[in-house]
Amino acid sequence: MEQKHRVVVVGGGFGGIACVRSLKAKDVEITLVDQRNHHLFQPLLYQVATTILPTSEIAWPIRGLLRDREDVRTLMAEVEAVDQDNRRVHFSDGGSVEYDTLVLATGARHSYFGNDDWETAAPGLKTLEDATAIRRRVLSAFEAAERSDDPREREALLTFAVVGAGPTGVELVGIIAELAQTSLVREFRNIDTRQARVLLVEAGPRVLPAFPESLSDYAAGALKRLGVEVRTGTPVTHCDPEGITLGTEHIPARTAIWAAGVKASRAAQWLGVAGDRAGRVPVTEDLTLEGHPEIFVIGDTAAATNADGKPVPGIAPAAKQQGEFVARKLKARFGLRRDPGRFVYRHQGSLATIGRKAAVADFGPIRLKGALAWWVWGIAHIYFLIGTRNRMAVALSWLWSHASGQKSARLITQGKQGIAVPRSSVAE
Amino acid sequence: MEQKHRVVVVGGGFGGIACVRSLKAKDVEITLVDQRNHHLFQPLLYQVATTILPTSEIAWPIRGLLRDREDVRTLMAEVEAVDQDNRRVHFSDGGSVEYDTLVLATGARHSYFGNDDWETAAPGLKTLEDATAIRRRVLSAFEAAERSDDPREREALLTFAVVGAGPTGVELVGIIAELAQTSLVREFRNIDTRQARVLLVEAGPRVLPAFPESLSDYAAGALKRLGVEVRTGTPVTHCDPEGITLGTEHIPARTAIWAAGVKASRAAQWLGVAGDRAGRVPVTEDLTLEGHPEIFVIGDTAAATNADGKPVPGIAPAAKQQGEFVARKLKARFGLRRDPGRFVYRHQGSLATIGRKAAVADFGPIRLKGALAWWVWGIAHIYFLIGTRNRMAVALSWLWSHASGQKSARLITQGKQGIAVPRSSVAE
Repeated sequence: MEQKHRVVVVGGGFGGIACVRSLKAKDVEITLVDQRNHHLFQPLLYQVATTILPTSEIAWPIRGLLRDREDVRTLMAEVEAVDQDNRRVHFSDGGSVEYDTLVLATGARHSYFGNDDWETAAPGLKTLEDATAIRRRVLSAFEAAERSDDPREREALLTFAVVGAGPTGVELVGIIAELAQTSLVREFRNIDTRQARVLLVEAGPRVLPAFPESLSDYAAGALKRLGVEVRTGTPVTHCDPEGITLGTEHIPARTAIWAAGVKASRAAQWLGVAGDRAGRVPVTEDLTLEGHPEIFVIGDTAAATNADGKPVPGIAPAAKQQGEFVARKLKARFGLRRDPGRFVYRHQGSLATIGRKAAVADFGPIRLKGALAWWVWGIAHIYFLIGTRNRMAVALSWLWSHASGQKSARLITQGKQGIAVPRSSVAE
Repeated sequence: MEQKHRVVVVGGGFGGIACVRSLKAKDVEITLVDQRNHHLFQPLLYQVATTILPTSEIAWPIRGLLRDREDVRTLMAEVEAVDQDNRRVHFSDGGSVEYDTLVLATGARHSYFGNDDWETAAPGLKTLEDATAIRRRVLSAFEAAERSDDPREREALLTFAVVGAGPTGVELVGIIAELAQTSLVREFRNIDTRQARVLLVEAGPRVLPAFPESLSDYAAGALKRLGVEVRTGTPVTHCDPEGITLGTEHIPARTAIWAAGVKASRAAQWLGVAGDRAGRVPVTEDLTLEGHPEIFVIGDTAAATNADGKPVPGIAPAAKQQGEFVARKLKARFGLRRDPGRFVYRHQGSLATIGRKAAVADFGPIRLKGALAWWVWGIAHIYFLIGTRNRMAVALSWLWSHASGQKSARLITQGKQGIAVPRSSVAE
């Protein structure tokens, strides 16, 4: 019996899962490695951070997704190194796995552009733990404000600053503003949550820079109507637990969230290659490492270029298309189909929501905004969720949130109090 | 304007919430203090620990529950001391609140009968964090077993021991056995999850000691049919991360869960009184502290005696009845109704489930077992959940779990790997 071709896929995100799903072939044996046990639907992560969805509705055990694939085994392990000579991936706990083909799809973390010490003050949003940590901070700030009798302290506690006005930043401030303006209003006795200040800070000239200017303008207006203070053309020069600094202006803010940039995972280090500015691995036209046709790098970890010379964007559909491309390429190598040629990214459109009732959608010639765009956004996201159960659960959560104006996933867990209130300012 | 009567309720569990809900009266001002922001439906906590329900479906923000009660303010704070002379509750962060009437309803933690060092090896189940920690351990044990190639190590990883055969212990082993026997079977490649060993260890002579003997027998039989090893009359003599010891027999088990006893919260210390063996505060017939008619102690924190001299059991319905009694008593003191006399506990029945298809129910003259008891259990629990949304969500989760045999809330969060695997035994 001939030995099977061993494909090792590292990363169970959109790219890795798409690759495994598309790659089903006789005599191929797949090992999927992830340091977590779940696949995460990152586009809705901000809804966990802002109390609309519970964690379980946007994450699925990877094993469960691949239950029916007897050719796939899943290992929960953290990669430490890749030995290219011996074609072996080493794990941090001493284990290892051999490959004939390696697919690295390990994603990205947020980047502070060299100011990593800002992370404690302004955490980013990439994992479920990030989301519950941000949820805890936001909710704990209201709790601490309710108990403080120092007006300045209260103001700092009720100031929420989000740095970066891409879709995630816009979506975060939209819901935080709604929480303060609507959902929480009647629940506090000492504070008026409507006086909370919600800031969206962006270094560039406009919000949603990847969208057409007309939609950016609409989004900025919609945010202002929700009570969000939009500060474009304003780079953040410092972050600490007391607040953020914009040039010479210091804004006391106990809650800051970082949505301004990403940095690829450590794949470039594992491969011993120089990453680009965002730490991404440069790849060839067929998404392999130069000189290593047996190593593919896809998704946010890869610096890939489209046929027109433009970079492939770091978004879920791009990662999926790359995962599917790798599967096609491998099948062609096994003689099971014709060669797909070079990777070509096809942009399907851009979507972003602003609060509970508006959104913007850019499908090239078709541009939508307002309530209709919101429905398109909602239906698209329900459609892309994995599994009937999750579709039903998320639909129920959204219906409930819409109909009642209430948010249902408002738990403060993991640490009783996220924010310490100075002794002097603690009210009865 | 006369000053309002200030009632401070500490604890937002079943007792505290029932008291606040029943106590609505002119000129009464209520402060509800809890160290967490959520009310927890503890009877279903084991389902979070065993991947059936996500955390958000059995917990609600206390503020949200009391939104419409403008006479109630909620403070998230941790009590450190009670100054009975000045009638003031002090918090650990330096704040404090004055009371005219104090209601302590702070519940219980699990007890190791003097062996507190067993807690790391065999955690108990009282909070949401406990539940997600146990869920992480159980799931991580299967993950580590899949990666181990040392047969003895694998066996220890696939041995799950639950100590204590009350309803919680029985319910935990039922679902863990099902996970191993059904839900997870097709997801692993290196191990056969059906070979997992699930033990229920009980010092007393039978499982479910509070139930009639016929139902205990039925439950023991049903557990055995699910593949659970039931060891009654077997006290645990030692627990450590390697396993548990029963007399002279050492059982290697990487996952142990403690469901054997409870110890009241620190209320007795705050009040400077001697607690009973379980640390509970002895209370008078009207649930007040001897000599202090302004201090009520209820729920698992109180050692209350019924009219017939029997102790009031530490279960949710008893805490609720006590909370409602305190509200009636206070209203009587304010001249708003006649005095309710002494507290009388009315037992409404006992229920426990065994896996996904069986249960036992004891309503005095009526005893049920099997599928019918399961339906009674399910309907009763849905009914007692707070809020339409949660009822729908839990019903959906259960239907899904029933119809598909799958568990939907299988996330390993907070710590990437719950169980470290020795380097020597890590497989590819």
